Amino acid sequence: MATNGNATVAIDGARLWQSLMDMARVGATPEGGSRREALTDADAAGRALFAGWCAAEGCVLHTDAVGNLFVRRPGGDATLPPVLMGSHLDTQPSGGRFDGIYGVLAALEVVRALNAARVATRHPIEIAVWMNEEGARFSPPMMGSGVFAGVFPECAVLDAVAQDGARLEDELKRLGWRGSAPAALAAHPVAAYFEAHIEQGPVLEARGHEVGVVTGAQGQRWFEAVVTGREAHAGPTPMELRRDALVAGAKLVLEVERIGKAHGGSGMVGILDVAPHSRNVIPGRAFLTIDLRHEQEAALDRMEADLRAVCDGLSRDGIAVALKDFWSFPVTPFDPVLVGRVRAAAAARGVVASDIVSGAGHDAVYMARVVPTAMVFIPCEGGVSHHPAENIEPGHAAIGCQVLCDAVLATA
Amino acid sequence: MATNGNATVAIDGARLWQSLMDMARVGATPEGGSRREALTDADAAGRALFAGWCAAEGCVLHTDAVGNLFVRRPGGDATLPPVLMGSHLDTQPSGGRFDGIYGVLAALEVVRALNAARVATRHPIEIAVWMNEEGARFSPPMMGSGVFAGVFPECAVLDAVAQDGARLEDELKRLGWRGSAPAALAAHPVAAYFEAHIEQGPVLEARGHEVGVVTGAQGQRWFEAVVTGREAHAGPTPMELRRDALVAGAKLVLEVERIGKAHGGSGMVGILDVAPHSRNVIPGRAFLTIDLRHEQEAALDRMEADLRAVCDGLSRDGIAVALKDFWSFPVTPFDPVLVGRVRAAAAARGVVASDIVSGAGHDAVYMARVVPTAMVFIPCEGGVSHHPAENIEPGHAAIGCQVLCDAVLATA
Repeated sequence: MATNGNATVAIDGARLWQSLMDMARVGATPEGGSRREALTDADAAGRALFAGWCAAEGCVLHTDAVGNLFVRRPGGDATLPPVLMGSHLDTQPSGGRFDGIYGVLAALEVVRALNAARVATRHPIEIAVWMNEEGARFSPPMMGSGVFAGVFPECAVLDAVAQDGARLEDELKRLGWRGSAPAALAAHPVAAYFEAHIEQGPVLEARGHEVGVVTGAQGQRWFEAVVTGREAHAGPTPMELRRDALVAGAKLVLEVERIGKAHGGSGMVGILDVAPHSRNVIPGRAFLTIDLRHEQEAALDRMEADLRAVCDGLSRDGIAVALKDFWSFPVTPFDPVLVGRVRAAAAARGVVASDIVSGAGHDAVYMARVVPTAMVFIPCEGGVSHHPAENIEPGHAAIGCQVLCDAVLATA
Repeated sequence: MATNGNATVAIDGARLWQSLMDMARVGATPEGGSRREALTDADAAGRALFAGWCAAEGCVLHTDAVGNLFVRRPGGDATLPPVLMGSHLDTQPSGGRFDGIYGVLAALEVVRALNAARVATRHPIEIAVWMNEEGARFSPPMMGSGVFAGVFPECAVLDAVAQDGARLEDELKRLGWRGSAPAALAAHPVAAYFEAHIEQGPVLEARGHEVGVVTGAQGQRWFEAVVTGREAHAGPTPMELRRDALVAGAKLVLEVERIGKAHGGSGMVGILDVAPHSRNVIPGRAFLTIDLRHEQEAALDRMEADLRAVCDGLSRDGIAVALKDFWSFPVTPFDPVLVGRVRAAAAARGVVASDIVSGAGHDAVYMARVVPTAMVFIPCEGGVSHHPAENIEPGHAAIGCQVLCDAVLATA
């Protein structure tokens, strides 16, 4: 075998694409997407296909207590923790072919390429398939990586019940995924974690770039606002005597948009419900959900203060706006050394790349709390994701995989 | 009997109030309101109570083909058509004690007062109890008066089916209200129509007035707007690449409010639905209902043109706003002579009164299309109606009834 130092391993883009297409046929939908919700028979079939490919590469597989799957290619020094790559194979109910799957199969392609080139690494290399990243059947999302990173207690996750009534641990046992090893970093030390993923947004495509060097994940703060006015008949109530909760709610929608733009982050209202919801009754109540995001925690503080001031300002003349914290997620920077290796790998290959911050949640965002972590993004068509029309270019898939391979090799 | 010319008949406010309270016990709800939905047993019980009172006054009762009830007090000249007073006894499912009922029982009190004073009129005087004004059980509202005025075909109304599955004609037969006379003005000529009603709005209360001289009814134009943007993940989509249908919808809500105020009418959005209705997905679609009202048809034309220009202006940068006509109701002026008699009656009694335009629909609005018509409004507490808390002051009930009595007497 060649040594790590002088290795330049070329991944096989056609082989990667073929694997992506083969996996897409498991749970394929008439609309052209895939449906493999977590811990369903289709999810198991997808994992079985993947496990077969791994076995053919001579890798050792094991699952932990919550069904995370680890696939090991040995390194030269068995005392060293592995360099981990991965993502997830489960999909949304009406999911696409690449979200998550690309990261797992790009990792497989790295292993295949290393094997084909007979390249040895000091660290073992592992592929992680995280259990239930999507959170569509069992909530919350990023469940397997969340337990592994200590965000969720293992027992709570095992007790999770799906909308279809299934209990998570029962499903793990039914599928043979209930491993004996604790799902925890302490039980399974990791040197570094890399995740390749489709961007799920339109930025790289708009920039005309092939790869995004992900420097971290945005922080998120979610709120609920209840606007209370006074319900009244539309006809007999003159404009100046109205206390229209929807008019105040509409102002709040526009203020949230202004806040997102003014602070260089994002802000939006995804849900707006009106009561009593009648064509000729002035709305007495409006319910809104608010989603603020930014790359910097201090900016999020300013955005939240701005929002609170807006709600206070709207609370007058018979209108009351009550704002409630709903959920938040801190700004997550990735590891500068690993991010630097991704950036250097792209530069060395002449890839048109740029730094990007992830706006969506990924297994890597939980992993980054406990392990040095980096991500590689590739563009996706029109930014469309969680949809059967989700699409990527084979060339981008290959380039992203090559960058992943080079960065992993530089680490392992 | 006294002659019409010099009659000043005093109504009995206490007797009127007692009848209102007695009627409220039929279908009384724990919340303090009444529930007598159209053509239910409770509605029939209410009408039976009323019919008994009328029989005690020596009146003749008959129903027409759709269950409108007419109660006649003979006049001196049997060849003259009657002067009609009335309203409805049916209520909303969670209705109050006065909406409609006040107009019927005020009319009854006028008859009682005429009888007590032994006053003869030239024209017969009649009380109308219109079938299904509320439109809660059988749709549309103002059904009985609508058929009588030729707005709805009789056969279509007889075939109406309630949400509970009941067919209207079957219910009429079950209750013994299916009369043989056609429900039509041609079959039942009327000289004039007066309706007393609670305002169902806050204007008279805000002015501190006891009676409203209703000069007509606002015109209404209802629209539906569909705003189409682009659904996308909140996280990965930068603000400048978003096509947020709710942001455009919120602008439309505020524009509709501006249009209402700017043209001296009213404008509001009662329903706003967002899709896909998720906390972290940028809305790709918003559905809005728009309600514009004004006292003048020409002003409604200008409001509609303003609205169309607003929708065109919002349709850019990846946002499309489609506006659809949904329903409209023309401006309805009442008869100037009859309105003048109401105004004169109020002035002669020293009542604090002012002109007002009805924003809500009433049986009188359909009747005004075919018969000289006027209405008398009295204040209702806080403008609240269609609610168990609906309330009026006994003093206002008496004053409004006295004005009705004087105006009817001046006409009959």
